[in-house]
Amino acid sequence: MADLRSEFVKVYSVLKEDLLRDPAFEFTDNDRQWVEKMLDYNVPGGKLNRGLSVLDSYKLLIEGRELTDEEVFLASSLGWCIEWLQAYFLVLDDIMDGSHTRRGQPCWFRLPKVGLIATNDGVLLRNHIPRILKQHFRGKPYYVDLLDLFNEVEFQTASGQMIDLITTLEGEKDLLKYTVSLHRRIVQYKTAYYSFYLPVACALLMAGENLDNHTDVKDILVEMGTYFQVQDDYLDCFGDPETIGKIGTDIEDFKCSWLVVKALELCNEDQKKLLNENYGKPDPSNVAKVKALYNELNLQDVFAEYESKSHGRLTAAIGAHPRQSVQAVLKSFLGKIYKRQK
Amino acid sequence: MADLRSEFVKVYSVLKEDLLRDPAFEFTDNDRQWVEKMLDYNVPGGKLNRGLSVLDSYKLLIEGRELTDEEVFLASSLGWCIEWLQAYFLVLDDIMDGSHTRRGQPCWFRLPKVGLIATNDGVLLRNHIPRILKQHFRGKPYYVDLLDLFNEVEFQTASGQMIDLITTLEGEKDLLKYTVSLHRRIVQYKTAYYSFYLPVACALLMAGENLDNHTDVKDILVEMGTYFQVQDDYLDCFGDPETIGKIGTDIEDFKCSWLVVKALELCNEDQKKLLNENYGKPDPSNVAKVKALYNELNLQDVFAEYESKSHGRLTAAIGAHPRQSVQAVLKSFLGKIYKRQK
Ligand SMILES: [Mg+2]
Ligand SMILES: [Mg+2]
Ligand SMILES: [Mg+2]
Ligand SMILES: [Mg+2]
Ligand SMILES: [Mg+2]
Ligand SMILES: [Mg+2]
Repeated sequence: MADLRSEFVKVYSVLKEDLLRDPAFEFTDNDRQWVEKMLDYNVPGGKLNRGLSVLDSYKLLIEGRELTDEEVFLASSLGWCIEWLQAYFLVLDDIMDGSHTRRGQPCWFRLPKVGLIATNDGVLLRNHIPRILKQHFRGKPYYVDLLDLFNEVEFQTASGQMIDLITTLEGEKDLLKYTVSLHRRIVQYKTAYYSFYLPVACALLMAGENLDNHTDVKDILVEMGTYFQVQDDYLDCFGDPETIGKIGTDIEDFKCSWLVVKALELCNEDQKKLLNENYGKPDPSNVAKVKALYNELNLQDVFAEYESKSHGRLTAAIGAHPRQSVQAVLKSFLGKIYKRQK
Repeated sequence: MADLRSEFVKVYSVLKEDLLRDPAFEFTDNDRQWVEKMLDYNVPGGKLNRGLSVLDSYKLLIEGRELTDEEVFLASSLGWCIEWLQAYFLVLDDIMDGSHTRRGQPCWFRLPKVGLIATNDGVLLRNHIPRILKQHFRGKPYYVDLLDLFNEVEFQTASGQMIDLITTLEGEKDLLKYTVSLHRRIVQYKTAYYSFYLPVACALLMAGENLDNHTDVKDILVEMGTYFQVQDDYLDCFGDPETIGKIGTDIEDFKCSWLVVKALELCNEDQKKLLNENYGKPDPSNVAKVKALYNELNLQDVFAEYESKSHGRLTAAIGAHPRQSVQAVLKSFLGKIYKRQK
């Protein structure tokens, strides 16, 4: 697999060079420099998990035979389309959140020469996806399904982002809005579809499958994505900052985290009052009171139970799938995240 | 045609209702209210010229027989997709330009409850287009061509926006950058493709045509779109504010207008110095000096000559087209804009 990773990484430059010579637009050298710098800054610097999993999944789906060079290139290109999609979301999300850093460097829009031009750069990143798809997949029988898939998943992600924004930014801070159902919808739409379902769906299409026959796979992956985000929320408070590489600030930031949602579900009136008074404040003493309440409510145990139940449900659902190769794809995903510490 | 307009307008509510019940996302009433308000605020309030011209063009292409109800609905839906595309561009453009008003009301992002959530609303507007296309055109033989068309035109528009942004916002004001070639590229990519080519291309696809056989039509419409924007630049300075409904500010705003580009081309060193000292400043005395120079350089005559030459070239190109029905579409477009005063 180490080799697949380096194959995957190589494809980025090929796609970039094509985009910089796209005949649908008349580039000057100056334009090309702008786009190239923007791409290098925003696209390849992540962990590449989503992109790589197209390649990994496709290999498992065709049951282990060697991939041809063309298959590696095509699966990698689809993987990069997901990385482009992610870059687009992140560039715009950082603007909307007023964030300062991303992946260890200033957010793109924070660069003095960029500013709000970053909004249009986000749009360009998004536009690159159909350019890549058209160039390399136009003749494939699954071309139109690829376009539909990326369109639907982008729509779902933007809808998830919308509910996140309108509940957390709109008006005053109000914990009443934070329900299990809202949390589930935000996570499912904003994260799970594009991070978990999309890579596997791309691999399925490349393998000649009809996605209408795989709604069970979609359901499993969306549940896995939800579980992944619940872990993320949990680790933000209870993880080891050394291991996860950052100090969580979900409490200070008034985030609709799984922990606060569970706390609200389990607490009595006094505890709810305490939460209302201390959640979403920057002072360490407020944060400490929230954390003490989380401990009082045994949220670590509540999480352990959620994790174990979710794992059981997912394992059963995967085991019920009629195809070994699809089971292998799903097991590989689950194996990568179950009981992760970072 | 008055009747076609009211048919067109009715289709908006049908499309909106469908979007608010899109099964790909789980809406709450609150989400639905947000999206509905956002759509009503941003989509239908323009002149609807682009959207209506899909319907007009299609009627001319099928040479005047009565349209069926289905044809009216489908052509109107494509027209509305262009209005949605325009709304998406305008919402984001107003954010990037820091504008205050649009179509006689505050820009969407200026509403206190909206702010930068408008960025994601722009993304949602964009995402609605493939949702509309999928719902109503998925089974049509030209479905994939429609997706490709909207993708390519959006890419061209975003690229045009990019060159506009990186030349006019990046760094200090420098008239040296303002060349005829830059002006032509900005106008062609940022405006002409989506405003002139896209409506006719939609109608051609609906009429069963292959767009690859119509590159001549594309070239003519792109030239017409360029001519239209040159008129816009001209009227900004020389038009009657009463008639055009606003007072032009291109000179104050340091716009890469056709007028300043022509002035730079025609002026001597002293005049260039005067331009450099006075262009892009808010003071009326600076503006007056620029206008005096425009008069000195006879830009009104230069424009009249451009207009007449452009009209001659377009008429000849249209006349050379082998199909009467296509000629009728192009003539109708040209008739609407030639020598317009607003
Ligand atoms: Mg963020
Ligand atoms: Mg955010
Ligand atoms: Mg987190
Ligand atoms: Mg503007
Ligand atoms: Mg602008
Ligand atoms: Mg203008």
